[in-house]
Amino acid sequence: MDKLHSLYTVLDLAGTFVFAISGATAARQRGLDLFGICTLAFTVACGGGIIRDLCIGAVPPAGLATWYYLAASIAATGLTVGLYPVVQRINHPVILFDALGLSLFAVTGAEKVLSYGHNAQVAVLLGTTSAVGGGVLRDILLNRVPVILEKEIYASAALLGALLVVLGNYLKWVSADWVSILAIATCFTVRMLALRYHWNLPGSTRNRVDPDE
Amino acid sequence: MDKLHSLYTVLDLAGTFVFAISGATAARQRGLDLFGICTLAFTVACGGGIIRDLCIGAVPPAGLATWYYLAASIAATGLTVGLYPVVQRINHPVILFDALGLSLFAVTGAEKVLSYGHNAQVAVLLGTTSAVGGGVLRDILLNRVPVILEKEIYASAALLGALLVVLGNYLKWVSADWVSILAIATCFTVRMLALRYHWNLPGSTRNRVDPDE
Amino acid sequence: MDKLHSLYTVLDLAGTFVFAISGATAARQRGLDLFGICTLAFTVACGGGIIRDLCIGAVPPAGLATWYYLAASIAATGLTVGLYPVVQRINHPVILFDALGLSLFAVTGAEKVLSYGHNAQVAVLLGTTSAVGGGVLRDILLNRVPVILEKEIYASAALLGALLVVLGNYLKWVSADWVSILAIATCFTVRMLALRYHWNLPGSTRNRVDPDE
Repeated sequence: MDKLHSLYTVLDLAGTFVFAISGATAARQRGLDLFGICTLAFTVACGGGIIRDLCIGAVPPAGLATWYYLAASIAATGLTVGLYPVVQRINHPVILFDALGLSLFAVTGAEKVLSYGHNAQVAVLLGTTSAVGGGVLRDILLNRVPVILEKEIYASAALLGALLVVLGNYLKWVSADWVSILAIATCFTVRMLALRYHWNLPGSTRNRVDPDE
Repeated sequence: MDKLHSLYTVLDLAGTFVFAISGATAARQRGLDLFGICTLAFTVACGGGIIRDLCIGAVPPAGLATWYYLAASIAATGLTVGLYPVVQRINHPVILFDALGLSLFAVTGAEKVLSYGHNAQVAVLLGTTSAVGGGVLRDILLNRVPVILEKEIYASAALLGALLVVLGNYLKWVSADWVSILAIATCFTVRMLALRYHWNLPGSTRNRVDPDE
Repeated sequence: MDKLHSLYTVLDLAGTFVFAISGATAARQRGLDLFGICTLAFTVACGGGIIRDLCIGAVPPAGLATWYYLAASIAATGLTVGLYPVVQRINHPVILFDALGLSLFAVTGAEKVLSYGHNAQVAVLLGTTSAVGGGVLRDILLNRVPVILEKEIYASAALLGALLVVLGNYLKWVSADWVSILAIATCFTVRMLALRYHWNLPGSTRNRVDPDE
């Protein structure tokens, strides 16, 4: 299953980079300076993972200690500032990789929590946090209500992915690798369907259209 | 003193539930979706305790690992979404249990910090944080200045409760159980008197009326 | 080099106090009450250090456990509430000591991270966070976009200071004490020149004048 883990690494890098692009774009639209843009890119790319790592006692958080989160943020900043038309044109792949990043972060996040010996509830909550925490921090820094709390099946898809990891891990119907694949595929599918058919959770009274969510 | 600890458990559950109601109500008024409402309920119920636990190295934080915070948040979400008229009608008991929750969280928070061997200052600061941190996070997520920083004797009552725990623990005039009871009673009384007579700390220039504070 | 460390202590106290003044002033201008003013003063004085300590596993964070951060916050609150004309008149020394505090916090923050055995990237990121994290938290609590993300060479100067510490530590061209002095002096000079000549990073579209930044 070495191929699987190489695939994960590629998806992880792609997801991180796309998350960083989302942060850099939002920061640029808000008129932040270079430092602000790079900070926002980095925050979205690894903010959720940092919160998860603090909560399970994995210090220093992987997001701070690993070079490629920072590299992805710097690359995203350069692209967003220097080649903004390119960033606007890749909107479609961005949505795709954002959904992939969401799925991957939720699943690998939940797996990391379980591997530290914590219980199922902690794994579900922090798996979801790994996936959506960065976006929440981005919105707090940009002084707006976090968009994932307001509308669309975004965090819920992450929650479902993390939940499947935990269930699979307890039931042991299939191998751990298959559990990961199944959870990632489910989360990704739900997210893409929600985008395609404009699914929302009940309760939301807002219908803002926000392409960089 | 087993009865005392059963009483604590009941008060803790009631306080957690009322805190969750406060988060869910604020989220509903802001038009968040189901996921957002549940997140806000959970944030108010255990956000302060999570910050405290991170600061004393108690990982994973009790709020994430214990089932009843999550259960209280889900129940509060269901009640707020499904039976909103009921939530509005129980406004009076909510204020009462909110003050009880505040007192209990401040006191048990300070006691937990002391039991981890940290000094008096840490216990007072983090005891207060246990009680009011969730409300501060709620207001940050809802994109407004935390109401406890602006007006009324709320955080100050929690501070007083935590301070009494630390003083009682050093002076050892009475047993630890009596210290707890005294601290909870004082914090609760100050808070209820402040509500009754509209006490404010000097400096505040605002007089907003905000029932779900 | 005992004299050097006495000098550091004096600068550290002065920097902490000035950071606390900045928080208290911003809180007073926003109409917060006494508790809110003191909380904001404390947040600016040690918020960055608390984030750093959580990320390197140094619990409880020094900012919570050491008396003088709290004392500086209380003193700053008293001064800002009781003698506001004095605070307005010391605007010039405040800018000077703010730049000194920034430099010192960035450098000593990076050194603390290295002393815990973490890598260069963690030291640079968390050294910068030590210096600017408190100001970011202040702006989040006051419900505005953090000013350091928008304009001026502020965080960048801190980043430069932390970077020099790490470089000096790896290259070992001069002794650790000289590395500190050099890094502090560079950060301070860059910050003062940026203020004097209104340097900004590219990308910023805002030109707000905000004296208490």
